[in-house]
Amino acid sequence: MKPTHIEHIGIAVKSLDEAIPYYEKVLGLECYAVEEVADQKVKTAFFMVGQTKIELLESTDPEGPIGKFIEKKGEGIHHIAFAVENLKEALTATAEKGVKLIDQEPRKGAEGLNIAFLHPKSTFGVLTELCEHPEE
Amino acid sequence: MKPTHIEHIGIAVKSLDEAIPYYEKVLGLECYAVEEVADQKVKTAFFMVGQTKIELLESTDPEGPIGKFIEKKGEGIHHIAFAVENLKEALTATAEKGVKLIDQEPRKGAEGLNIAFLHPKSTFGVLTELCEHPEE
Repeated sequence: MKPTHIEHIGIAVKSLDEAIPYYEKVLGLECYAVEEVADQKVKTAFFMVGQTKIELLESTDPEGPIGKFIEKKGEGIHHIAFAVENLKEALTATAEKGVKLIDQEPRKGAEGLNIAFLHPKSTFGVLTELCEHPEE
Repeated sequence: MKPTHIEHIGIAVKSLDEAIPYYEKVLGLECYAVEEVADQKVKTAFFMVGQTKIELLESTDPEGPIGKFIEKKGEGIHHIAFAVENLKEALTATAEKGVKLIDQEPRKGAEGLNIAFLHPKSTFGVLTELCEHPEE
């Protein structure tokens, strides 16, 4: 695996309506999209910073992964996503090295990306996503 | 403020010796520097991914900020650093918008950067660093 860049940083927030103005007015970023990912029980807001997106995540269900994360740890950084060129190959190589996978196979994430998560128990506490653009 | 990119992502680990091989052998990144920042009671290891560095942080003192973070929350993502072109101006503008600062003035961080932290109480739970290259 050779990640090309940090595709995005996922940040759990209680309310997009409250957090978006901070990212726009204080940090000077522009929210270019808001998208609901029903599958993950989140509503997301995206900002571009150089090569990397900030992905704010608001839970739409207290039983969803972001709802549980906020209940346990409070608002804050949730995961890092590395862009890779061949996700299936990267997943296979990662599993072969003994890393526990959350997703054994790529699935669809926000913005139409193919994504898969590695388990934080195998990644020194960092919930790690690998993702590829479907056209790559 | 208009950040140009994510300068680095700081990740707290218990042991650089254990974590570096994961970043190198599994994620395929190269550790290009290890540096002690005595002031912050940490030893750091750096990896480049596109425009962004992964900065692993091992505590050199249980009473230091990373020692306390790991004791409370375990290993994991500690902070995000945004690169800005004029740190002093960015800090002033940020404080004027009501954001609480950890560092009122820029100070020296790893790799000779000028840095300052914003308080996570004002940034929706994300420990946020602003930094500039001293030559900028």
